[in-house]
Amino acid sequence: MPKLDLDAIEQTNRTFYPEPYASPMKNRFYRRLAPAAGLTDFGVSHVTLKPGGISSQRHWHEGEDEFVVLLQGEAVLVEEDGEMVMRAGDCAAFPKGVPNGHHLVNRSDKDCLFIAVGRIVATDCHYPDIDMHLNAANGRFTHKDGTPFRVARES
Amino acid sequence: MPKLDLDAIEQTNRTFYPEPYASPMKNRFYRRLAPAAGLTDFGVSHVTLKPGGISSQRHWHEGEDEFVVLLQGEAVLVEEDGEMVMRAGDCAAFPKGVPNGHHLVNRSDKDCLFIAVGRIVATDCHYPDIDMHLNAANGRFTHKDGTPFRVARES
Repeated sequence: MPKLDLDAIEQTNRTFYPEPYASPMKNRFYRRLAPAAGLTDFGVSHVTLKPGGISSQRHWHEGEDEFVVLLQGEAVLVEEDGEMVMRAGDCAAFPKGVPNGHHLVNRSDKDCLFIAVGRIVATDCHYPDIDMHLNAANGRFTHKDGTPFRVARES
Repeated sequence: MPKLDLDAIEQTNRTFYPEPYASPMKNRFYRRLAPAAGLTDFGVSHVTLKPGGISSQRHWHEGEDEFVVLLQGEAVLVEEDGEMVMRAGDCAAFPKGVPNGHHLVNRSDKDCLFIAVGRIVATDCHYPDIDMHLNAANGRFTHKDGTPFRVARES
């Protein structure tokens, strides 16, 4: 049936950010709905932000539109020009190429659920608050001057 | 601000279906969020189904994925293999090219709100229950044998 059994789709809190930017993501859990459902035109993430969680580091994409709709709880949308509370049913859109870094922060004591829609990222992504940059050419996060992050190797 | 002021975006119940398939759409009201917000990668509709409303005639697209998430109220998802109730937070996905006609029907006595995501339709669309077909080549609805609908002209 096309109605999705969310519980049957893997939920994870993994991130590809390097440290120290990965640890703040530990309270963001998400399910990738598009591959589970056979969609390829766009991606859809079903995200649970636990109290204290952030949706991402504050960022903007050069070449991918993003859309979010809040399903449950509340989150603070933080962007270049300030903050705004979002509650169930509220929508926000982030057109590609607009240098307005954004993310959602759950400052409440309850889970916040939202849906995020966007294509697979194939362009540079900018992070105005931190010394990190996503380079589309090689798919890697680097410092803003292009130097790699030091990776702690497991022995 | 990227948070959308839904009340400021035009809401309409217009349809491009010919009669007699247009009239059943009168209880579906929608806002096109993507153009209002400057998104072009995909379309996003914010839909209100009033009691008795249907989201569309039951259909499937040859070349466009669709995704819906219920925000408020409830609707019955009708598809080829049966029916299933959807409530706030429920998601459904309709991969392109899968011949499983679907639509949402509001059989309750309250409004149902949902978000629908999909690209601009550029391929044929099939309507298993009715004698109608969307021909991508010319963007027109015809009967299944290709003959045009008779249009009642206003005098």
